[in-house]
Amino acid sequence: MKGATKIGKVHLVGAGPGDPELLTVKALRLIQGAEVILHDDLVPAEILALAGPQAEVVNVGKRCGAKKITQPEINAKMIELARRGQDVVRLKSGDPAIFAHLAEEIDALEAAGIPFEVVPGVTAGIAAAATLSASLTDRRSASRVIIISGHPVSRSGVLEKPDWKGLARDDATLVIYMPGSDFEGLRKDLLAAGLDPATPAVLVSRATTPKQRQRSATLGDLAKLPRMESPAVLLIGRSMDAAHRRLNAKDLALVLEEAEAIFSSR
Amino acid sequence: MKGATKIGKVHLVGAGPGDPELLTVKALRLIQGAEVILHDDLVPAEILALAGPQAEVVNVGKRCGAKKITQPEINAKMIELARRGQDVVRLKSGDPAIFAHLAEEIDALEAAGIPFEVVPGVTAGIAAAATLSASLTDRRSASRVIIISGHPVSRSGVLEKPDWKGLARDDATLVIYMPGSDFEGLRKDLLAAGLDPATPAVLVSRATTPKQRQRSATLGDLAKLPRMESPAVLLIGRSMDAAHRRLNAKDLALVLEEAEAIFSSR
Repeated sequence: MKGATKIGKVHLVGAGPGDPELLTVKALRLIQGAEVILHDDLVPAEILALAGPQAEVVNVGKRCGAKKITQPEINAKMIELARRGQDVVRLKSGDPAIFAHLAEEIDALEAAGIPFEVVPGVTAGIAAAATLSASLTDRRSASRVIIISGHPVSRSGVLEKPDWKGLARDDATLVIYMPGSDFEGLRKDLLAAGLDPATPAVLVSRATTPKQRQRSATLGDLAKLPRMESPAVLLIGRSMDAAHRRLNAKDLALVLEEAEAIFSSR
Repeated sequence: MKGATKIGKVHLVGAGPGDPELLTVKALRLIQGAEVILHDDLVPAEILALAGPQAEVVNVGKRCGAKKITQPEINAKMIELARRGQDVVRLKSGDPAIFAHLAEEIDALEAAGIPFEVVPGVTAGIAAAATLSASLTDRRSASRVIIISGHPVSRSGVLEKPDWKGLARDDATLVIYMPGSDFEGLRKDLLAAGLDPATPAVLVSRATTPKQRQRSATLGDLAKLPRMESPAVLLIGRSMDAAHRRLNAKDLALVLEEAEAIFSSR
């Protein structure tokens, strides 16, 4: 028997929300020791820079890139590398179990007989809540958290309109990943689903990174929110009351500061 | 002016699901450098052992302990320590924003003028999914994740019956924290809420620790699940199909192995 190579292992790893310090210790260890890293677009350069000099670092992101890579191509790449005997870190922004096509990659690895392991990470919605000092389950206002995508992708890769039914509860915190920029359309859909227009809504972009932005509105005023860079998460619910109040106070302070600067320069 | 002490800062930190390697790098740094750690019951000893020799480590867990500590007492303790100038790590199992009384502690710190910061962690439900190699949002079967407590605690500290309405969707993954042990009652409630009895249900206890246990059933057979140690999470939905199949295959393999051992010993 010649050329019997060992088969590599694929680690499907959550890179967390962006701050390299919010990697898990295990993710950091795997990144530092990786032979090959296949990563999504949203994994920041600061995290990729933690890879050792031996590592091959490949962007297999599907969005915005000039070259489009399909899910079957990513699956084939992981399998090919593992069959060559290489240990692969498949690095995903946030957590692999939340809107990250994990199940399809695992199905492909299982069918090919490649050993694999999933390493969880801090998902964007939970990181956004931390940056707002907000609980998603404040027992005084929220009995459940609903995690949903604003731009669900069908199996064939087509963007679909999300189904907003069943959200008409004032005791749920809605965590919308990929909220897009059509906040007027979203406002109409969520009001039609039965939500109260007074419900606070907070948009957080690039949570935990130096480019983090936070803006707040009510659901009725949702169209006032600006378009923000990915990854962005929109948090809606009464559990956001305090965060909404704090952000508004901060906005007001900024306006007052600007006004004062104008007056004092006269 | 005499005795003007600096005020300490309170870090409200997620300790992750149990495996010390699933701490974030930031949580590890804060634990290693902490002057005082106030921790919940469910934070494992392996993680507390990472504290430096200078650290005072105090269990302020509210369950099972002989001494009951109330939420206002925990709040007062944090404030008192910070006013004495000590930096406090308030260490919570999983993530602070998910069923961890974060908002109440922040309200108290804000009212007292104590600086604080929230450090997110990997929450138990997401860690459980990773141990099952399951996506919570498999786009072929799940468009949303609903995080809910099986034993919600009211503001006055009383256990309430959860409100299971609005769950009658076959494209949601239900992540039930603190599922308890009355699986027959839960089965009835979830069927009454409109869920399909064929929906797979997977119970994971102490995910990512050496004492991890996983057991699978269908919703119709939910009463067959054993009572398991905290922290436990029950995952219900079609996104659990593959995990359910794998666990059943493992169970079958064990039964066959036992049968073979009995036959061969004759």
